[in-house]
Amino acid sequence: MGGQNVTLQGLPVEEIVFAPGVPPVKTDPNGEFEVGQTYTQFVKLSAPSKRYPILFWHGGGMAGTTWETTPDGRPGWVMFFLHKGYDVYVSDSAERGRASWARYPEIYPSDPVFRSKKEAWELFRIGPPGSYAANPSERKAYEDTQFPVDYFDHFADQMVPRWIGNNAMIQRAYDLLVQRVGPCIVIGHSQGAKFAQQAALRAPEKIKAVVSLDSPPGLDPDKTSAAPARSVPHLFVWSDHQEGNPFWMPFQPAQKKWHDAIVAANGTADWIVLSRIGLKGNSYLMMMDRNSDAVAEVISQWLDRQPSLR
Amino acid sequence: MGGQNVTLQGLPVEEIVFAPGVPPVKTDPNGEFEVGQTYTQFVKLSAPSKRYPILFWHGGGMAGTTWETTPDGRPGWVMFFLHKGYDVYVSDSAERGRASWARYPEIYPSDPVFRSKKEAWELFRIGPPGSYAANPSERKAYEDTQFPVDYFDHFADQMVPRWIGNNAMIQRAYDLLVQRVGPCIVIGHSQGAKFAQQAALRAPEKIKAVVSLDSPPGLDPDKTSAAPARSVPHLFVWSDHQEGNPFWMPFQPAQKKWHDAIVAANGTADWIVLSRIGLKGNSYLMMMDRNSDAVAEVISQWLDRQPSLR
Repeated sequence: MGGQNVTLQGLPVEEIVFAPGVPPVKTDPNGEFEVGQTYTQFVKLSAPSKRYPILFWHGGGMAGTTWETTPDGRPGWVMFFLHKGYDVYVSDSAERGRASWARYPEIYPSDPVFRSKKEAWELFRIGPPGSYAANPSERKAYEDTQFPVDYFDHFADQMVPRWIGNNAMIQRAYDLLVQRVGPCIVIGHSQGAKFAQQAALRAPEKIKAVVSLDSPPGLDPDKTSAAPARSVPHLFVWSDHQEGNPFWMPFQPAQKKWHDAIVAANGTADWIVLSRIGLKGNSYLMMMDRNSDAVAEVISQWLDRQPSLR
Repeated sequence: MGGQNVTLQGLPVEEIVFAPGVPPVKTDPNGEFEVGQTYTQFVKLSAPSKRYPILFWHGGGMAGTTWETTPDGRPGWVMFFLHKGYDVYVSDSAERGRASWARYPEIYPSDPVFRSKKEAWELFRIGPPGSYAANPSERKAYEDTQFPVDYFDHFADQMVPRWIGNNAMIQRAYDLLVQRVGPCIVIGHSQGAKFAQQAALRAPEKIKAVVSLDSPPGLDPDKTSAAPARSVPHLFVWSDHQEGNPFWMPFQPAQKKWHDAIVAANGTADWIVLSRIGLKGNSYLMMMDRNSDAVAEVISQWLDRQPSLR
C-alpha cells in the first residue's frame, strides 16, 4: 500500500528477449511506475485476547523475515505474540523485500548499499570488530553470544539491499499503514524503531505503545518536542556488547535523551538493558538469538503492565 | 534457502552515514555475500485433507504476493486452496521480493528490468496494445475483462524488478526447495511455470503434478525428452485475448508441443483454454481477476481427478 505514481521520460528504449523463443520486447524504461509502497502481511486470530494488534517494523537492510522464524529454524516473534493473543502485522518497508524498489538514480537519489557478511557479523555484534572470517570455522563470536552462530550464513540469506536517503518515503508509507490499521502497538528494530518513534509523534491517538529495539539516534528533544508522545508508552530495549564499540556508543546516549524527554513531558518511558536483567550475550538480532523467547517475554510483560493497553 | 557464497574483491571502499548522528561507516563493498537464495513461507493445516502440499511459483517481475490477496482485497488462491485442504508454500524466487538480490554487474550479469504500468497493462492483456493511458480514467480495458481495473495501480505496487540471465540460479533454488519439501504439487504462473516444468523433469519422484498458467515457451521436445514427466500429470491453463497478440502468439504452440510430448510418452497432460469453458475475459493475472475463485475451482477439480494425488 501507499505507492505513488512517478513518471520517467527521455530514457532510451531497449530490446529485451525475456526467454528463448519469445520475440524481443521493446522495453521502454519510460512511463509510469509505482514508488514508495510498503508491503504488509497480517494474521488475525479468531479470538484475540489482546486489545490492540502489534505492527512489526524491521531494521535497515532487512525485511519482514526478521520476525518469522529464526535462522536455526525456531518459531520467531510473530508466532510468540500470536500465542500471547495479539493480531500481528509484519511489514517490508518501502524499498525492501516484497515492497519492491525503484530505478536509481532516476527515482531513488543514490546507489543501493549491500551489506557483506563481515559487516553484518561485526555491526550486529555477534563477535567483536575483527572477529569475522570468510571461513565459518574461523569466526570468533563472543563467548557468551546468544546468536545461533552455526546458522549465520543462513541468516545472511535474509539481508536485502537498502538505500540511504529514502527515509521520508518509508516513513510516509508507515504513517499511512498506521492510519489504515487503526489503534496499534509498534515494535521496531533499529531503523524500524526510528520510524515507529516518529509515527507515534504523528499519530499519538493511533499508536498505543512503541517498543524500540537497539534504536539508532533519531528524534532529538532539542529540535523536536516529545509532548505529543506523552500518551504513548515507550520501551527502549538494548542488547549486549555495545560498550566500547565505536559504532554503537552514540546509540544509547542519543535515545536516552528522547526517553528522558518523554518522561519530562509526563509520559511513560522505560529502559531495559538486557544484560542487566540477566539476559547476557544478546546480539543486535535479539529476535533470532537462542533466547529470543526470553527477550520477547520481557516485552510481553512490559506490554501487560501498561494500563492504556488493557 | 539455497544461498551460495560469492566473494567480491578489488572494489573501492566507501564511507556511508546511515543516519544523522551516527558516525560514518566505512562500507567495504568487497567481502562475502549470499547469492541465489529463495524465500518460502508455508502454512500447514492442523488436519490437511489433501495428500500433497501445493507450491506456488510466481511469474517474472512478480513475487509471492501474486497468490495472497487480489488487488481489490479479496482472498487469493492461498486461502482458496487452504480451504480445499491443501498445505501451501508460497515462494519469492531468487532475485525477487524477500529472496533479496545482488550487486550487478559484479554478481548478476546485467542490469535489472523495471516494468512500467503501460507494459504491464498491455502484456498482461487487461486491454489491447495501445489501450493504456497514464490517466486511469482514460485506460480502455477489454470490455469483458475480468481484471479489477479500478485497482490496477494498486496491482502495480506488487511488481518487482527482475533480471534476464539468472534462470539457472533461480531454477537451482527451486530444485532444492522441492527436495526439501518432498512430494508436492507445483502451480506455476508464467516464468514460474517454466521452472515448474523443468523441476518436474529433474524430480519426477517428488513432483506429483504441475499446473502451468500462461506459460511461455520453455522445454522443447526436439531438444529435451519428456519421458521423465510421464509420471507427473500436467495441466496447461490459458487466459483470454491471446489470439492475434504478437507477444502471446508463440506461447500456446510452443507449450502444445511439450503437452503432446508428455502424452506421447504415455503421460497425462491436459489443456484448458478458459474462454472455451465459459470463463471469458480473463487476463494474465487470472489469480487476481474478479472470477479468480472460478479459475481456481477449475484447477482444484482437475487436481481432484488425478488418481496419483489420492
